[in-house]
Amino acid sequence: MIVAGVELGGTKVLCGVGTGPDDLEEVERIPTGDPDETLAAVAAFLAGRDVAAVGVGTFGPVELRRDHPRYGTLLETPKPGWRGVDLLGPLQAVTEAPIALATDVEAAALGEGRWGAGRGARRLLYATVGTGIGAGMLSGGVFVRGPGHPEMGHIPVARLPGDDFEGVCPAHGDCLEGLASGPALAARFGRPAEELGGEHREEARRLVAGYLAMGMAAWTYTAVPDRIV
Amino acid sequence: MIVAGVELGGTKVLCGVGTGPDDLEEVERIPTGDPDETLAAVAAFLAGRDVAAVGVGTFGPVELRRDHPRYGTLLETPKPGWRGVDLLGPLQAVTEAPIALATDVEAAALGEGRWGAGRGARRLLYATVGTGIGAGMLSGGVFVRGPGHPEMGHIPVARLPGDDFEGVCPAHGDCLEGLASGPALAARFGRPAEELGGEHREEARRLVAGYLAMGMAAWTYTAVPDRIV
Repeated sequence: MIVAGVELGGTKVLCGVGTGPDDLEEVERIPTGDPDETLAAVAAFLAGRDVAAVGVGTFGPVELRRDHPRYGTLLETPKPGWRGVDLLGPLQAVTEAPIALATDVEAAALGEGRWGAGRGARRLLYATVGTGIGAGMLSGGVFVRGPGHPEMGHIPVARLPGDDFEGVCPAHGDCLEGLASGPALAARFGRPAEELGGEHREEARRLVAGYLAMGMAAWTYTAVPDRIV
Repeated sequence: MIVAGVELGGTKVLCGVGTGPDDLEEVERIPTGDPDETLAAVAAFLAGRDVAAVGVGTFGPVELRRDHPRYGTLLETPKPGWRGVDLLGPLQAVTEAPIALATDVEAAALGEGRWGAGRGARRLLYATVGTGIGAGMLSGGVFVRGPGHPEMGHIPVARLPGDDFEGVCPAHGDCLEGLASGPALAARFGRPAEELGGEHREEARRLVAGYLAMGMAAWTYTAVPDRIV
């Protein structure tokens, strides 16, 4: 079954067509700019293709409830110009194929669950650590969602001994993401994590490992995954 | 449909028969003592009754995976003498009715979801705060479980300003339960919470409210309930 996939990221959009990760006929990279232009470029990629379905993974937060009037619309996203943008309308206009929508983290969880390190897990928690800390969860192959999607990077965590950094999360300050994300490390040490050396590198490792361990403990006690990727 | 319910608690066992909370034909209270004697008394309550099903809610931790060889057995419980005890064998021996097993918190969640404050919720998180802090979750009427049941009371939490109490959790010290349960308050102030007055009472309220708020934030970000009871 040939399907199309679209990953909407903060700096670039990746589009692809194929039957799976080892069979991608075509991959196109589109810079994420003005919403209208960006979505028009994605629509141009999809237009006229004979695919069984389209999957869209996007940065967020995004309204995922299918029965909600704003389904497919970006919510309070920090990305300038993208708040309130309808992601699905411009794409559905050019294809008859059904379009499925997920967060970027959920889409990655689905990929790992189907083809990667999450194969065979009944309750798979997939976490990503970078500019932000996010996690998505599949239970029996279905996304775990409620009124919204999980925001596991924003849980409160206990302080590691000796750490009094105020945190960088605009919403919470010192939540998990505010203490252990890439920008948190950059703010702590005055330079990006990949440029750290010596003692600073060791200290960064101690902090990130400690806080992620706490995050994984809280996620495990709360969501009872049988695997974390 | 007439069913029987058994709640195995740390100090007492409550048994009942009926069609629902407003129609309990009979309730029997059995002190929780020696496992063999206690379970024999529960079996005597059930024996000879014409019920469609039996529901058992128990203190834990307990093995809940139906396909596990130790299904229905208490695991590393702190309750003296009960570790490794098979709860279901002695009961199944006296009744033909199917027996369903849940944790005490899950059983309460199920009751609230069916008859109480959780009616209509799609993802219901039920939390209880007392000797311990526990929470169970129903999604679409089904318990959320993984390799084990949730242990949401044991998540790490950030310290409230000015609080340096070491915590009372035997496993973690200052997890949510270790900082905000009944025994935590008793240890902080030297007397049970219900006997606190004046400033101590206000301080206890501030601490419990603050830590429970953090717990609910972490649970919400991770498990996305649409209602917390």
